[in-house]
Amino acid sequence: MCQLLGMNCNVPTDICFSFTGFQARGGATDVHTDGWGIAFFEGKGARLFLDHQPSCQSPVAALVRGYPIRSTNVVAHIRKATQGAVGLENTHPFMRELWGRYWIFAHNGNLLDFAPSLAGDFQPVGQTDSERAFCWLLQELRQRFAAEPPAAELFDALHALTLAIARHGEFNFLLSNGSRLYAHCSTQLAYVVRKAPFAAAHLKDQDVTVDFSEVTTPNDRVAVIATVPLTDNEQWSIMPPGSLSSFEDGQAVAERMTVPGPVKKTG
Amino acid sequence: MCQLLGMNCNVPTDICFSFTGFQARGGATDVHTDGWGIAFFEGKGARLFLDHQPSCQSPVAALVRGYPIRSTNVVAHIRKATQGAVGLENTHPFMRELWGRYWIFAHNGNLLDFAPSLAGDFQPVGQTDSERAFCWLLQELRQRFAAEPPAAELFDALHALTLAIARHGEFNFLLSNGSRLYAHCSTQLAYVVRKAPFAAAHLKDQDVTVDFSEVTTPNDRVAVIATVPLTDNEQWSIMPPGSLSSFEDGQAVAERMTVPGPVKKTG
Repeated sequence: MCQLLGMNCNVPTDICFSFTGFQARGGATDVHTDGWGIAFFEGKGARLFLDHQPSCQSPVAALVRGYPIRSTNVVAHIRKATQGAVGLENTHPFMRELWGRYWIFAHNGNLLDFAPSLAGDFQPVGQTDSERAFCWLLQELRQRFAAEPPAAELFDALHALTLAIARHGEFNFLLSNGSRLYAHCSTQLAYVVRKAPFAAAHLKDQDVTVDFSEVTTPNDRVAVIATVPLTDNEQWSIMPPGSLSSFEDGQAVAERMTVPGPVKKTG
Repeated sequence: MCQLLGMNCNVPTDICFSFTGFQARGGATDVHTDGWGIAFFEGKGARLFLDHQPSCQSPVAALVRGYPIRSTNVVAHIRKATQGAVGLENTHPFMRELWGRYWIFAHNGNLLDFAPSLAGDFQPVGQTDSERAFCWLLQELRQRFAAEPPAAELFDALHALTLAIARHGEFNFLLSNGSRLYAHCSTQLAYVVRKAPFAAAHLKDQDVTVDFSEVTTPNDRVAVIATVPLTDNEQWSIMPPGSLSSFEDGQAVAERMTVPGPVKKTG
């Protein structure tokens, strides 16, 4: 399987601290050695760094750890291949444009017998179940809405689509369009919200501590979402399996259950 | 204006040498300080590095210069803003997916009164004329072909579409889908093909020399395309203004004139 890391904030924030712990899981403290990637939104623009090397050895990861890119929405992924060869075209996160916004998607899990009909609006470049799910999701959103709908309608649609895909297997994902970050917990996902009064946080995977009170202002709010909590002295919320959450301005603003039923048999 | 750099090869090759000279033009030896970007195809996968900082100061450019990413198709751009603010969403190259392949596009020039009808398949995220042209180009290709057509048909279609856009102004561009690289010279573009017997090349913008005979095999062939020749001891071909070229396996395989007529007045 893979691991996910996301960040959603009310002011542009760098992810260097959390990424330092996450990166170690790509081959050092854990086994996710089949590539990694991270996407940063800066306004409507997005930067996507991908590498087929394990994140613990990757020169690109060293750059990301040391270069404080400030972003309000970040999605990262370290890969342990299940479907699709090790290669750049199968490395998450994936990026597409819909309604004049970039959308970034990363998946942890495994979908079985998921072969939806794709009309051509969004076609997978690689061979993963994950990119196929992302393409179908965007296709269906585009069919429902000619332009970006209000947040509540978009959440409803995402909820229905996620439910349909989650019937095919494990489908933990992070999805962002730069203004909100959606997180679906199929089996394993947790988050922490950092806000005033800020305190020191200590990584689980490396002996690194940051005192956030020294690098923040009282109005800052940052939600960090990860497959497994990244720190050992903060209160992480374990997300309920089968739940879709929407994060905005550094806090969870919507949550709805998506516990899947059995796969429908056809034919 | 901006500057373009492209590379098309028959075997994966790193662009560190050419990029070293090109990068210096982003604020050191020239004035293109409004961001830069570079895209590398590796198989069907693509990596896109973007930065809003001048390339001569950018930590991301330092990484690209020092990390030998081997690629058969590369497109790079340093920006001097004409249309659209300085920001990541207006930084070239732009990337979209069509027919299950990534397409990468960078433009040097300025298009006036270019406001094509966009149906929604490909929508600009930023405000540049360049991204608008790219989106329209892909939209029209998709309308003509449900899947990637044979090379000759694709070239014919690109030629007709380029002609239509070039009526609106200066439209030097590089476009690649990872298997071929298309270059349109509206006003200024040159290329060199490096093949056996390889020799030493010396950069114009920095005092750096590489002896390619030490780092190549006899079958290697590399085409480097740039707004202004990057070396001062090689024979660069100056591309004719108003010409579209297709590069494959390190050589120009097709060329056709696209000298524009006057802009049609409507209404």
